[in-house]
Amino acid sequence: MNEKLTCLRNKIRTMDLDGMIVSNPVNIKYLTNIEAEGTLVLARKENFFITDGRYIEEVQSTLTIQDEIIVCDVKDISKEDFENFFLFCENIGFEENYITYSQYKEFIYKYKINNFVETDNIIEKQRAIKDEEEIKKITKACAITDKCFEYLIGTIKKGMTEIEIANKIETFFKENGADGLAFDTVVASGSNSSKPHAVPTQRKIQSGDIITIDMGCKYKGYCSDMTRTIFIDEINNEVKQVYDLVLKNQKQTLEAMREGLLCKNITKMVVNDFELHDFSLIHALGHGVGLDVHEIPILGTKSEVVLKNNMVITDEPGIYIPGKFGIRIEDTVVVGKSIGIPLTKSTKEYVIIKN
Amino acid sequence: MNEKLTCLRNKIRTMDLDGMIVSNPVNIKYLTNIEAEGTLVLARKENFFITDGRYIEEVQSTLTIQDEIIVCDVKDISKEDFENFFLFCENIGFEENYITYSQYKEFIYKYKINNFVETDNIIEKQRAIKDEEEIKKITKACAITDKCFEYLIGTIKKGMTEIEIANKIETFFKENGADGLAFDTVVASGSNSSKPHAVPTQRKIQSGDIITIDMGCKYKGYCSDMTRTIFIDEINNEVKQVYDLVLKNQKQTLEAMREGLLCKNITKMVVNDFELHDFSLIHALGHGVGLDVHEIPILGTKSEVVLKNNMVITDEPGIYIPGKFGIRIEDTVVVGKSIGIPLTKSTKEYVIIKN
Repeated sequence: MNEKLTCLRNKIRTMDLDGMIVSNPVNIKYLTNIEAEGTLVLARKENFFITDGRYIEEVQSTLTIQDEIIVCDVKDISKEDFENFFLFCENIGFEENYITYSQYKEFIYKYKINNFVETDNIIEKQRAIKDEEEIKKITKACAITDKCFEYLIGTIKKGMTEIEIANKIETFFKENGADGLAFDTVVASGSNSSKPHAVPTQRKIQSGDIITIDMGCKYKGYCSDMTRTIFIDEINNEVKQVYDLVLKNQKQTLEAMREGLLCKNITKMVVNDFELHDFSLIHALGHGVGLDVHEIPILGTKSEVVLKNNMVITDEPGIYIPGKFGIRIEDTVVVGKSIGIPLTKSTKEYVIIKN
Repeated sequence: MNEKLTCLRNKIRTMDLDGMIVSNPVNIKYLTNIEAEGTLVLARKENFFITDGRYIEEVQSTLTIQDEIIVCDVKDISKEDFENFFLFCENIGFEENYITYSQYKEFIYKYKINNFVETDNIIEKQRAIKDEEEIKKITKACAITDKCFEYLIGTIKKGMTEIEIANKIETFFKENGADGLAFDTVVASGSNSSKPHAVPTQRKIQSGDIITIDMGCKYKGYCSDMTRTIFIDEINNEVKQVYDLVLKNQKQTLEAMREGLLCKNITKMVVNDFELHDFSLIHALGHGVGLDVHEIPILGTKSEVVLKNNMVITDEPGIYIPGKFGIRIEDTVVVGKSIGIPLTKSTKEYVIIKN
């Protein structure tokens, strides 16, 4: 069987489950490479992918014999067939964080499930630690993102709108080998930069602006995520001090992103330093990155997760002064044995655009 | 209170609910204009929007006094506060088709809910009938789509790929006032046109091609959805006959899209006429359009929904001959008292591009 499925099957056995229903399409893609609407059923011995006529051909051509997955057209499955998938099974796992309450009820009824058991992000936890192939894809997505930042430094001019810059980023990604955007680009200039999740507006870039650019692309399904805050013509001293404080913490966090450290302890380090300077950290310090741009672990002050080698996470401290300005600096990072290794490598020195 | 919230509150009262938790962000936007992560809590007397630090400023500036919504930062809400939202309440509604099984359990625990009740798409049903402002926005999205079709007629040339045409559509939308795409554009040429959900490929447009273009944009959050099937250099008689049959049914459907008619009866009319000619209707005849591009009602042979004035729905019969070609013609339509009024107005005569 394929390695990722084997690993999952071993895991569910230790949880005393006789099978599992996988519904989250990203988890299905991770386990099988299939990108189609449908349900992956891990029965006691066999694996089934239940889909419909639109996808059968496509799915068959994606799978190999090693995958050991039987593809079924939902219209050929009778009421009795559904009930037979888990015949003589007791405990069947499901993704309680993905399926809706109505799907939960429907599955129990349709598959005649005795005991439908929550699996506590079992697949997402497996996804958190990346293999070599996955890290390669994320590295490539990050390299495209770095190239885009370099291009932006030469392209951004006073008079351009935030939306124009966001469009340039999207076009650059598409023309440079990315599948597309990993998430909606943030281009927040002037006082807009004080909103961490600002949506690009028609505001025109002007002298004295601070611009926060949070962008990422996908390469073969895998995401990058990087933020840089840049300046037009000048930086005043108040802003410089905040920038330096954010950068110092971003670098310290990078060093702390190593195997064995607790997410909450890394986060508290930043929270404490910000508070010492009368600021606060109003969002998470980082999050996992992979097939989704937001994955586990979340780096928050309550997160008991211990970092493991080859997790890929972001390091993104930010300070926001409402109505005035904001500074965020973010890299995508691989957790290493002794230090975090940034995959996004764009400069974090002051970038001041003069033109 | 704002009208949409008042209408929802009246409705839940008739269902014997003392309150409701609204989680679907599209429903929240519909009711309040808020576009932010968070939960809308309709308590017995007051409304709360629970969000976090990232969105407070933005949300406060979106809401007016008429909305009567109290904005809370989740970090300021204690365990007791949560339990007090529904104090002395018996039945509280939730969106069973939106919230996950874990959220369902979490809500019951956190808000100490006595009886958590499924609400059967109550808000989606309210959304199905549009008000004047909503119809204006959809009309504008449709007008941009019509302009785009006119532009395409002057732009499509032999040798262009499907992907190039799709990119031109996206760029046109953005440069002509749309927020962006309502859905992934379909440009399906030659035998690709026989797949109703074809994804644009590198196939080059050539003489004799049939091209199905299914496109839509968003304007202030509201979607348009239009399909036209056009021809390069010529149409042969077999294709003409199919085109005429689809168009005849599209026009008949348009006339039938009036208050009081049953969705299943309208659909059966088309199904029957197609079958008389040895074809079949392999997808729904239409669907609601609004903040989402696919909303209720669905026009299928089993849909018991009765059309109401000011519903906005698509009228999109199609015939697909596997491996050969397909024809689909689609308008976005407002249901009227005596007839459906198309909001997309591009020509449905044969469009034959010669260049």
